[in-house]
Amino acid sequence: MTEIKIVKNVLEANESIAAQNQEILDEHGVFAINIMASPGAGKTSLILQTLANLRNKLRIGIIEGDFASRVDTDKVKSYVEVAIQINTKGAPESCSLIAAMIENSLKDLPLDDINLLLIENVGNLLCPAEFTLGEHKRVVISSSPEGDDKPIKYPLIFSDADAVIINKLDLVPYVDFNITKFRQSIEGLNPAVKIFEVSCKTGAGIAGWCSWLLQEIENNAIQRTKLAGK
Amino acid sequence: MTEIKIVKNVLEANESIAAQNQEILDEHGVFAINIMASPGAGKTSLILQTLANLRNKLRIGIIEGDFASRVDTDKVKSYVEVAIQINTKGAPESCSLIAAMIENSLKDLPLDDINLLLIENVGNLLCPAEFTLGEHKRVVISSSPEGDDKPIKYPLIFSDADAVIINKLDLVPYVDFNITKFRQSIEGLNPAVKIFEVSCKTGAGIAGWCSWLLQEIENNAIQRTKLAGK
Repeated sequence: MTEIKIVKNVLEANESIAAQNQEILDEHGVFAINIMASPGAGKTSLILQTLANLRNKLRIGIIEGDFASRVDTDKVKSYVEVAIQINTKGAPESCSLIAAMIENSLKDLPLDDINLLLIENVGNLLCPAEFTLGEHKRVVISSSPEGDDKPIKYPLIFSDADAVIINKLDLVPYVDFNITKFRQSIEGLNPAVKIFEVSCKTGAGIAGWCSWLLQEIENNAIQRTKLAGK
Repeated sequence: MTEIKIVKNVLEANESIAAQNQEILDEHGVFAINIMASPGAGKTSLILQTLANLRNKLRIGIIEGDFASRVDTDKVKSYVEVAIQINTKGAPESCSLIAAMIENSLKDLPLDDINLLLIENVGNLLCPAEFTLGEHKRVVISSSPEGDDKPIKYPLIFSDADAVIINKLDLVPYVDFNITKFRQSIEGLNPAVKIFEVSCKTGAGIAGWCSWLLQEIENNAIQRTKLAGK
């Protein structure tokens, strides 16, 4: 049973660092989202579409998490104020970003110069569900070629999400993916979740996602002002 | 540094149980393969195609690994001698099958009645790379919609594979996937790997994969007979 206790302690320590991270972000007026998905579901494509839509309205920073390589950072770096690459290879928790990695990155980010931080997690539907980072919202992308049974097989990550993005709508005609069944599975786990149907390839549905994100940033700013006034 | 030591011990203990598992499999003349991939890359579809091609030639057992649900076992159970579901939810290592889980399952499998054991791992390109199970061959499936950069981002699992299967060939016209670039990335990491291009939807390329598998089973049987004669 020692092993289980160790795992529990690791998760508790992570929660505590995540709470500190969120405090630092709030002090500097930075709204952070944690973007999680299977490998190849479209995390970087969603980020690129989000940048194209919001970079004139917001000052955006990015943390790119990957087991290895800086492929994604190279794709996004010219569209943002700042981009940081984290490679988890060799870390005790190599299958996910963890709060301590974000804590380190926050020291290198010009927090007063940005108001949105997009964190792209490692491609994985399991480990990232267990480690919060200090983000304000948790977003899961699921793409149509992966099949409509993913919420049943990976319930934890979907239960905990604030938003789920169904990506690769353009491939729906060519794959076995029942959108109604998928939505029902998610809503069964997580009735409050917001669901967006998009194609990061064609841009369909991106405007709705970006409106929601802007609204959440505004709600968060109002809430912080209220708390500060108390 | 204590934490790293614990991880190392867990992996060493796993290797030792995996070696015992392979001995048990060899004693009973069962050839085992460990099938790994991202969520939704086509592990169950490859298994269904393999069963359709080989069930008249071999007696096949299956271990289905998933974090939650028995969706995949329900899909395959009528085509095999025996199917066992392992759900990793709640286990200290919930992001992969580990050798101890297979050790337990081997007690429930009628090993003298089967000669091929297909092990479908949890959908994940990270954790399963670290835990061997006692399998004779390690197979990684990567599907075209995931993109051609997966070997660069998840090098460990591709470096260690005996075979890589490029699935969803039927979707290549609709996605950004450069087969030559993908093959070169894998061969750079793992020059000895065998690569198959298939579509589990249309059946294209499945015959080549099944021929290789039959040949590997035969090679293993010959080798075991030779070792036993020494």
